[in-house]
Amino acid sequence: MPFFHVSMRKGTSDEHRRAIADSIHQGMLESMGLPEDDFFSVIHELDDANFRYPATFWGIPRTDAMIFIQFWWNARAAVTKQIIFDTIADRLVESPGLRREDIIMNINEPAPENWWIVGREVDPRTGTDRRIKPGG
Amino acid sequence: MPFFHVSMRKGTSDEHRRAIADSIHQGMLESMGLPEDDFFSVIHELDDANFRYPATFWGIPRTDAMIFIQFWWNARAAVTKQIIFDTIADRLVESPGLRREDIIMNINEPAPENWWIVGREVDPRTGTDRRIKPGG
Amino acid sequence: MPFFHVSMRKGTSDEHRRAIADSIHQGMLESMGLPEDDFFSVIHELDDANFRYPATFWGIPRTDAMIFIQFWWNARAAVTKQIIFDTIADRLVESPGLRREDIIMNINEPAPENWWIVGREVDPRTGTDRRIKPGG
Repeated sequence: MPFFHVSMRKGTSDEHRRAIADSIHQGMLESMGLPEDDFFSVIHELDDANFRYPATFWGIPRTDAMIFIQFWWNARAAVTKQIIFDTIADRLVESPGLRREDIIMNINEPAPENWWIVGREVDPRTGTDRRIKPGG
Repeated sequence: MPFFHVSMRKGTSDEHRRAIADSIHQGMLESMGLPEDDFFSVIHELDDANFRYPATFWGIPRTDAMIFIQFWWNARAAVTKQIIFDTIADRLVESPGLRREDIIMNINEPAPENWWIVGREVDPRTGTDRRIKPGG
Repeated sequence: MPFFHVSMRKGTSDEHRRAIADSIHQGMLESMGLPEDDFFSVIHELDDANFRYPATFWGIPRTDAMIFIQFWWNARAAVTKQIIFDTIADRLVESPGLRREDIIMNINEPAPENWWIVGREVDPRTGTDRRIKPGG
């Protein structure tokens, strides 16, 4: 049950922002083996004074289209995370057409026991996920 | 000095949102042994296009009343966290009357040395909290 | 490539909020040895009902000017983090003139492999940062 927050400037269309969340979700589905309905996301739209980034970083120009993406999910191998990052960036370049240079991502990996949602339980002794079948 | 962020859809009353924060706080007081005034919280209200969740997840319907809660606090035992989660969910069901199925929670556990507030210090050698008495 | 989120009440000027982000950034530059253009930040302005804190905490009065700062950066030594916290608090007291008692900070330390930005790569075997020279 991963979820993510996006932070970005105000001033884009609903479609633009829906495309951002859809593409991140699509990249996650392709690279993480999630069930299709595993899609929980938040976008924060921010005034200019509240969203700051450098015009260039490491000599590379960055633009007002810049987005910060922060993920929360269970830990994965480093190699897997590289693939997830690349897949998500590819989808965002396709739609809504972001530049790769305007995407920043980071990941938080709370332990399995640190998640709660109805339909899921964690065995406190082993830390293992137990998915509870609805109605059973 | 735990604190939490709630993310949810726009369109509810101030009372509804105050009840959400109050119930989370109440659940924390009951299960975590905090001092009563240890209450720091943020609620983010989001447009429809910026708050996405599936109509059903693991076969269980989810509704527009859904909230994501993210905690930051010092590490606790897995069993304790289960009790905290359950207590908070109980309080939210009572007031403002959320469905358990519309609550998602996760926990971030920064090390004690990763917190700063006047009135508290951490011994950098041991990582132990030292509460500084006001005026002394 | 650290970045930070600030949460605070609505009702301040753009200048006030720019000064907050600038002072945090300045404190980071002085204490963390970052390149000058390493400045990524978000400020969330919140309605009264959505930003809650106690009138006093540990017997110390807190005011409406209170801000919560959350950092994401690569892990550092505990002693270093104390210096970073203190330097940032000093800068915020100078400009925009916050009280130290109205500042709360915490740090999240994702592993180096948990960051993605064009211009940087992590060796998945060693977890070491590799900065990619632009155009090279």
